[in-house]
Amino acid sequence: MSLLDPSRAQRYMEIALEEAAEAALRGEVPVGAIVVDGASGEILAADGNRTEELRDATAHAEMLVLREAAKIHGGGRLLGCDLYVTLEPCAMCAAAISFARIRRLYFGAIDAKGGAVESGPRFFDQPTCHHRPETYGGIDEIRASTMLREFFQVRR
Amino acid sequence: MSLLDPSRAQRYMEIALEEAAEAALRGEVPVGAIVVDGASGEILAADGNRTEELRDATAHAEMLVLREAAKIHGGGRLLGCDLYVTLEPCAMCAAAISFARIRRLYFGAIDAKGGAVESGPRFFDQPTCHHRPETYGGIDEIRASTMLREFFQVRR
Repeated sequence: MSLLDPSRAQRYMEIALEEAAEAALRGEVPVGAIVVDGASGEILAADGNRTEELRDATAHAEMLVLREAAKIHGGGRLLGCDLYVTLEPCAMCAAAISFARIRRLYFGAIDAKGGAVESGPRFFDQPTCHHRPETYGGIDEIRASTMLREFFQVRR
Repeated sequence: MSLLDPSRAQRYMEIALEEAAEAALRGEVPVGAIVVDGASGEILAADGNRTEELRDATAHAEMLVLREAAKIHGGGRLLGCDLYVTLEPCAMCAAAISFARIRRLYFGAIDAKGGAVESGPRFFDQPTCHHRPETYGGIDEIRASTMLREFFQVRR
């Protein structure tokens, strides 16, 4: 299997997209994420954005799955684990992904307004970033971005 | 009172330094933080780094006090609140501070290796940052940096 097996990456992104769709049903900005054990393929955590429900500005999908997966994995560091998220991570989540030592990051749509991987501060390219996951963007990006656009069209 | 009343800022930083000292006693990297309601002066949350104890790479002092203060304040956004932290925030915490709409950020020592305010990605200066707190660095920085240096001298 190549590092980026398209069918495998898309299967996992499909699950992240389902989490994003469930977030939208809860009235949350539709972003979903999962953490996968790279060796076994087991999904350690899956969740969507819950900033409104938890009234917590830090409750992005990535933060929730990193913390949940760390509980299962038995430690703060998720060595050998991969994170799939439907939207380019922001600076908070990119730094958390780095601290957790995620092996590979797969994301869907680019977030030119708030992203921090290919946009804005490009956190993983900074000298202050001490662990850089392999990063693959644009996975199922049209579905992820369409879901976000439709969500905001209804509300704005 | 000026925006930066040195005696007031130092009194609050003193409390953050006490949290940092308690973190060191728990074997955690000594960083402490508090959130203060800017109008009443009330301390809404005070805590130190707990990444080891919670086995959670995201459990930086700033993240813990932002989440705790949000519960008390009744929402994810801490409008009119100020955050004091003994070390320059990293990108994760800087972004969380921005999302929480913290009014003023006071920090102690510069973190050239991992900071994201005056170092590295300078998150608040990025076009992808949509709320910039007023920022005052270097408050009691010698005490904060001495505490960190002594902690690492014993361990490395």
